[in-house]
Amino acid sequence: MIQRAVILSTGDEITTGKVVDSNSNYLADKLNEIGVDLIAVLTVGDVPERLEWAWRTAMEMADLVLSTGGIGPTADDLTTEIVARLTGKALWRHEPSVVQMKRMFESIGRVMPENNIKQALFPETAEVITNPIGTAPGFRMAVPQARHTAHLVVMPGVPREMKPMMENEVIPWIRLNRGSDKVFATRIFQTFGISESGLDEAVAGLIKPEEAKVGFRASFPQISMKVMVEDVPGRAEQRLDELSERVRGRVGSYIYGEGECSMEEVVGRLLTERKLKLAIAESCTGGLIGHRLTNVAGSSSYFEGDLVTYSNKLKISVLGVREETLQNHGAVSEECVREMAAGARARTGADLAVATSGIAGPGGGSAEHPVGTVCIALAAEGVSTSRRYQFRGTRDWVKLLTSQVALDWLRRHALGLPIGEAEVFRR
Amino acid sequence: MIQRAVILSTGDEITTGKVVDSNSNYLADKLNEIGVDLIAVLTVGDVPERLEWAWRTAMEMADLVLSTGGIGPTADDLTTEIVARLTGKALWRHEPSVVQMKRMFESIGRVMPENNIKQALFPETAEVITNPIGTAPGFRMAVPQARHTAHLVVMPGVPREMKPMMENEVIPWIRLNRGSDKVFATRIFQTFGISESGLDEAVAGLIKPEEAKVGFRASFPQISMKVMVEDVPGRAEQRLDELSERVRGRVGSYIYGEGECSMEEVVGRLLTERKLKLAIAESCTGGLIGHRLTNVAGSSSYFEGDLVTYSNKLKISVLGVREETLQNHGAVSEECVREMAAGARARTGADLAVATSGIAGPGGGSAEHPVGTVCIALAAEGVSTSRRYQFRGTRDWVKLLTSQVALDWLRRHALGLPIGEAEVFRR
Repeated sequence: MIQRAVILSTGDEITTGKVVDSNSNYLADKLNEIGVDLIAVLTVGDVPERLEWAWRTAMEMADLVLSTGGIGPTADDLTTEIVARLTGKALWRHEPSVVQMKRMFESIGRVMPENNIKQALFPETAEVITNPIGTAPGFRMAVPQARHTAHLVVMPGVPREMKPMMENEVIPWIRLNRGSDKVFATRIFQTFGISESGLDEAVAGLIKPEEAKVGFRASFPQISMKVMVEDVPGRAEQRLDELSERVRGRVGSYIYGEGECSMEEVVGRLLTERKLKLAIAESCTGGLIGHRLTNVAGSSSYFEGDLVTYSNKLKISVLGVREETLQNHGAVSEECVREMAAGARARTGADLAVATSGIAGPGGGSAEHPVGTVCIALAAEGVSTSRRYQFRGTRDWVKLLTSQVALDWLRRHALGLPIGEAEVFRR
Repeated sequence: MIQRAVILSTGDEITTGKVVDSNSNYLADKLNEIGVDLIAVLTVGDVPERLEWAWRTAMEMADLVLSTGGIGPTADDLTTEIVARLTGKALWRHEPSVVQMKRMFESIGRVMPENNIKQALFPETAEVITNPIGTAPGFRMAVPQARHTAHLVVMPGVPREMKPMMENEVIPWIRLNRGSDKVFATRIFQTFGISESGLDEAVAGLIKPEEAKVGFRASFPQISMKVMVEDVPGRAEQRLDELSERVRGRVGSYIYGEGECSMEEVVGRLLTERKLKLAIAESCTGGLIGHRLTNVAGSSSYFEGDLVTYSNKLKISVLGVREETLQNHGAVSEECVREMAAGARARTGADLAVATSGIAGPGGGSAEHPVGTVCIALAAEGVSTSRRYQFRGTRDWVKLLTSQVALDWLRRHALGLPIGEAEVFRR
C-alpha cells in the first residue's frame, strides 16, 4: 500500500549548487496530485556512504522511494550498485535492455561503448522500466522492512527521460497500489487578472473542503488553480465536471485556459480560428510581446510583425505617431498608444493591433508618470480602445505584466469580452 | 570548526510541489564557494514530527545546519519552537527586534499585528541576526553533540531577505570559523561560443588542480567558469589575479564578461561607451533580441528600436528587402538578412543593426533549409557581414541561441574582434 513517499535526489551537481533540483519539484507536484504524502526529500552527493545513508533512511521511512539520477554509465553513477548492496541482491544483466541500448546507438551511427553495459545491470527481483527516449532504463523493486514494504523506483536524472517514465509507467502503477479504490480526477484552470485571495474567496463558498481539494500556484503574472476530486473511477470525473462548471460560472472570463497552456497559445488559437492577422507596436515592453507570440509554433499564420519603436523618433517615422501628440501628451499616454496601434495596423494591414508604452523603471519616472505607468491600446476595424495602468514591481515584472495584459486584451477582443477587466489592478 | 553542512529546507509549499526550492541551490553554491562540504539537503513539510526528525538528524550529521523558512508570524511557522524544544532551551523575547519590527510596520503606515511578536522570540543562548529588509530576524546558536558542536543558523525563507543575511552576516562568520587561516578567492568568467569540454581542455593544461578549483556551469546558451583559489588572505587574491590573466590569455574573446553579467548588459555598456545607436531587424527570433536588450535599465540611450518583420510582406514594406531577393534566395538567406540589416539601419538612422531570419521549428523545415537554419547579418558604416548557421534544438533553444549569437556579433563588432567565431557551432 503506497501512501507515504520519500524522494531521493542525488548528484554532486546538486550539492555543489551547479544545478537547481527541478526534478524533485516535478515529482512532489505529481505525488500531490495522486494523493501520496511526501514525507521528505533527501538530497546527497555522489558519495557512497551518503547515498547508503539516504537509501537506508528512505526505505525505513516510506512505502515509496522515488529516486532520480545516478544510473548513467560512468563511475560516479552508483545508485544501482548501492541498492543491490543494501537489499542484499546480486546484479543480473537484462538482455532486452542491452539489445535496446545497442539499437539506440546504431540509430545514431555509433557503436555502444562497453561501459554502457552497466546500465543494463539490475538487482535480482527488480522489474525493469523501459526508457523509450534515452539509454538508461529504470527499475522498480519491493523491499520488505520491519513494519512495511518499501517500494523503490529508480529513474534517470534527465528530465525529458524521467518525466515520460513517471507519467506513463510509475503514476499508473502507484494509482493501482494506493490501497484505495478511489482515484484523483484533476483539472487546472489558468487565470489572469484576479488575485490569489480573490480566487480563493470566489471558490471558498463554491467548493466545500470535502468535495474537492483546491490548490493555487502563482507563477507571475498568472495564477493557476487546481481542483482535485477523490472518488471511485467514473464518479470522480463526473463530480469534477460538475465542480468545473461551477468554477467557470463564478470565475468567468478570468479563466483564460484549462490544462497546461499559456496566454500566448490561447491567443494564437483564437486568432487562427477567427482568421485574424495581428500586428504589435511596442515601446516599454521592447519586443517581449512579439517574442511570446512567436514562442508558439505556427504563429506565422496570424502574426505579421512587431514594430518596436523605443525612441520617439521611430514612433513618428515608423508608426506615424504625430509630433503634436508626443509634445502635448508625451510618449506614455493613451493618445500616443492609440496612434501607435492604429499606425501598426495601417502599416502592416493587420486586422488588429495592440500597442504598449510605459515607464518600466527603475529610472525614468516622474511625479506625473511614476515608474510602472503603462498605457495600452487596441485597434481593430471600428475599434480604438486604450487604458492607463499603474503597475508595481521591478523592470522585468512591469514588462512581463504589461505583455500579459496586452495579450489578455487580444483574447478578450477575440472572444467579444469587455477589455481590461482586471480585478487585481483595481486596488 | 565548520567543515560539513546540512541544509534544512522546510515548508508544505515545497513538499506539495507548489514552489521550486531555489534557496537550497543558492546556499549549496555559496557553501561550495567557501569550501564547506554539503553532506545533505533535508526537505520536509510543516509537520512537527518531521521537522523534529530533520533537525535532530541534521545536528547529528553536521557542524553547520542552515535552515530557511518557518520563522514567519503564522501558526505553521514552527522552526523556532522546535529548535528550542530539541535543544532544551526556553524562548525569550528580544526587545530590540520588537522595536525594529514595530518601526518597520510604522514606516508603511500600519500597526504591527500581535502575532508578529512571535518573530522576536528566540531560544536562550541564541544570537540574533538582524534582518534589515523584512520583519523576521534570524538567529544562530551552538549546540553540543556527542562528538562535535552543531552550529545552527536559522534564516527567513523569502530569498530577498535570506540572501543579504547569508552574504553579509553568515558567510563572513563561517569563514572565520572554518578552522583554517585560509580563505577562498573566487572569480567567474562568462563565456559564449565555446563548449564546456572545449573550455575544460583549454584550462586543463593552464591551471593545475592544486593551484585552484575550476568549475563550470552551463546555463544555455552561455557557460560560466568559476576559478577558486584557497590561500591566506592577500595571497589568495594575488594568485587568483595571476591565474585570471592566464585564463584571459587562453580563452580570449570567448569570455564576454567577468562576475555576474549578461551578454545584453555587456553589449549595452559597449554601445554606451562608444556612443553607438542600435537597431534590430528580427524574423525567426520574433522580438527576443529587442526584449533582451531592453531588459537592461538605461537601454533607451542606445536602443532605437526593433523591426520584427515576421511576414515577407513586412520585410519588403518595412525594411525595404527586395522582392527579387525573396524570390531568388528566400527569406532564410544571407542575402535577405543583409538587406534586412541595411534596411533597419537606413529606416532608423542607427549606427549599426543586426538582423536574423531562420527556421525555428518544429515545422517549416525543408531539405534545403532544415529546422535550425538561421542567417544573421550585421550592418554598420562600410560593413555588411552575414553568415548562415545550422543550429540544433527545440524552437525556444533556436530562438535563444540565435539571439545570443546576434548579441555576440554586436559585442565583437564594438570591440573590433572577428565576428561569428564560435568554436561550438563548427562541429
